[in-house]
Amino acid sequence: MTVSEETTGPEQLLRQLFDVAVSAAQPDSCVPPFLPSEPAQGRLVVIGAGKASAAMARAAETFYGRPLDGLVVTRYGHAVPCEGVEIVEASHPVPDNAGREAARRILDLAEGLTADDTALCLISGGGSALLSLPADGVSFEEKSEINRALLKSGASIGEMNTVRRHLSAVKGGRLAAACHPARVVTLLISDVPGDDPGVIASGPTVADPTTCADALTVIDRYGIRVSGAVRTALDAGALETVKPGDPRLAQAETHLVATPQASLEAAAEVARAAGFDAHILGDALEGEARDVGTLLAGIARQVASRGQPFAAPCVLLSGGETTVTVHGTGRGGRNVEYLLSLAIALGGLDRVHAIAGDTDGVDGAEEVAGAVIGPDVLDRARALGISPAARLDDNDGHGFFEALDVQVVTGPTLTNVNDFRAILIR
Amino acid sequence: MTVSEETTGPEQLLRQLFDVAVSAAQPDSCVPPFLPSEPAQGRLVVIGAGKASAAMARAAETFYGRPLDGLVVTRYGHAVPCEGVEIVEASHPVPDNAGREAARRILDLAEGLTADDTALCLISGGGSALLSLPADGVSFEEKSEINRALLKSGASIGEMNTVRRHLSAVKGGRLAAACHPARVVTLLISDVPGDDPGVIASGPTVADPTTCADALTVIDRYGIRVSGAVRTALDAGALETVKPGDPRLAQAETHLVATPQASLEAAAEVARAAGFDAHILGDALEGEARDVGTLLAGIARQVASRGQPFAAPCVLLSGGETTVTVHGTGRGGRNVEYLLSLAIALGGLDRVHAIAGDTDGVDGAEEVAGAVIGPDVLDRARALGISPAARLDDNDGHGFFEALDVQVVTGPTLTNVNDFRAILIR
Repeated sequence: MTVSEETTGPEQLLRQLFDVAVSAAQPDSCVPPFLPSEPAQGRLVVIGAGKASAAMARAAETFYGRPLDGLVVTRYGHAVPCEGVEIVEASHPVPDNAGREAARRILDLAEGLTADDTALCLISGGGSALLSLPADGVSFEEKSEINRALLKSGASIGEMNTVRRHLSAVKGGRLAAACHPARVVTLLISDVPGDDPGVIASGPTVADPTTCADALTVIDRYGIRVSGAVRTALDAGALETVKPGDPRLAQAETHLVATPQASLEAAAEVARAAGFDAHILGDALEGEARDVGTLLAGIARQVASRGQPFAAPCVLLSGGETTVTVHGTGRGGRNVEYLLSLAIALGGLDRVHAIAGDTDGVDGAEEVAGAVIGPDVLDRARALGISPAARLDDNDGHGFFEALDVQVVTGPTLTNVNDFRAILIR
Repeated sequence: MTVSEETTGPEQLLRQLFDVAVSAAQPDSCVPPFLPSEPAQGRLVVIGAGKASAAMARAAETFYGRPLDGLVVTRYGHAVPCEGVEIVEASHPVPDNAGREAARRILDLAEGLTADDTALCLISGGGSALLSLPADGVSFEEKSEINRALLKSGASIGEMNTVRRHLSAVKGGRLAAACHPARVVTLLISDVPGDDPGVIASGPTVADPTTCADALTVIDRYGIRVSGAVRTALDAGALETVKPGDPRLAQAETHLVATPQASLEAAAEVARAAGFDAHILGDALEGEARDVGTLLAGIARQVASRGQPFAAPCVLLSGGETTVTVHGTGRGGRNVEYLLSLAIALGGLDRVHAIAGDTDGVDGAEEVAGAVIGPDVLDRARALGISPAARLDDNDGHGFFEALDVQVVTGPTLTNVNDFRAILIR
């Protein structure tokens, strides 16, 4: 991508970096290099789940040049037409009946495979909710209630997934075990810290080293309410996932086709081409969104005032997934919560601009990826009678940035490599 | 300082960096270069307030080689013997009667000075609470009540200080005005972001650009209840602070003698001499302590796994003051809360060591500065049956690190340039 002359303003450049980060994770470009050769005798069957799964299936059909058998489940609004693979849309982040029905049919497909067949499993972020089917003995209602409680609890994504895997009929390697004795090739688009295949979409085709006891530890640490039946099943190890070394997974291989780091590297390259030193602080920064904002503001201030730890002009890039402990009733999301906190902590600091967005195009519950700001953001808000601090207290990032007309709106991007944050210091 | 051969282990080096940071801010070394020549005819009178004020006064007596006249107020436990300067101990962070009485006597001393005299004003962190005296017409009870309401209001620290300065008999330049027509030399040890002399101890000798009208704006913006008498006095400008350009401050000069940044730079130099690249992320990083730990762990992980944004081996230095929202009942402090969170987020990552401590030697309510850790800290805790996550949930950092025998204990250091954090990646 080149930087055209009309788009060299700092906020235009930041928007371009976001777009480049999203492009680097687009299935059309990142899936084909990892597709397996077709099986000599058996069938190639596509299964999968995630916000990118339909786009990944289409990339596979384009590569093989023919309609493929199979079924993948994606988020409402994320379907793209495929010739052979059936696309089912379902609800995310709160699972619904369409997702459960699709999960049942995918398990049926998997169980019908033979040793001659290859299952091509296309997994991306969001797959955990989309491929949601309770394990035997766990009710849908209770699984949903536990998930809602986890999302509000402040638990890390890793902790949440430890619980989810053990309550699921699909996750923690159970889907790959169902494919046995077929070959299983899993292509993954990562939206998780460390890019651990067992964590992406809760690892439906990957062995799970965590145990029922680990799940109980998370449940108790965050005070999540569970029924006596579920507690007893976890206590007894009756909900155990597929463990490393299980022979049913001997024919399973996994490939990471897109990652937060690769997208950050792509953005860094464009920033450098535009004349800015680019520094990747981390591809998996975590923490409460508003505190991440405060802290990164401190680093930006050090750059601006002392040229440490980096000389200006530069861009500070980071990925990962922050958390929001909801206290207010506003319209929020991780990225806008972070960005509003960053703006407040920067206090209108001159020559500092920033963008934050979810690479899937959806930050929180809104069809808005994020927002982009400059040094004037607080003054502009106050001129409209809007208190930045009060909006942050109300978790109303989307409301705040909408009023200022600085939202980043992409529509569903059909991929997801998590949050993208850039701070530009001129 | 040289690195001796016996002390080159990573945790010994980190402890040395902390000691160097504290040393750089010791009054014995940082005060003398800024002391004024003695007045030709008049008196040299020492006044001041803060956790370091007694040690600063002693450094002055040592420099001039004789007992000096004057009075300074410091925190309980922070007195050091001086030959001439009277040391009064008072309460911090909640003011008490001893502090008010000392403030009255310091104002009396100031008002007795002539044009031949020099006031040496020694100010450090904590001075705002220690030198607390309401302005005429404001009761102690109302000033305290307004302060409590401000702390709960969501007002920024800058907004709170605008109100506080206008309700004070000492702050906002009033102490320097009281010294008129004497020369006033103020030496400051900074513990605030940005090192603004008007913010350190609320600027008793520094002109204040904010007005009574600004104070009323804050009061009304956050719905702070004030008496009719106070509102009338603010409306009439009767509580106005000393403004820039006021001729009473023409003979006033201020010098920053120690800052968080200078201490970080001193530590960086020692780290480099020991063969580690040293990077100062910020001298004023803020945020909830546990989230700062999580986030800096993410940056350390990026360094360790990808050599970004810095190549290992290196040391990441930072200062500033984090906050702790107390939920538990343990023995905690900002630095140990941060460090325990960092350890958990690092998850035993190989070749990463860290230290965190309050440069005043007192982290939270304990006479312990902080702690120093290596990659084995979680395993060692679990071997003792101690859950790091449960201890963090209970805000029990001191209890945790005490059990592992890795506390950093210095006793009161008689200075304060805020928190010191270093992460060493081998």
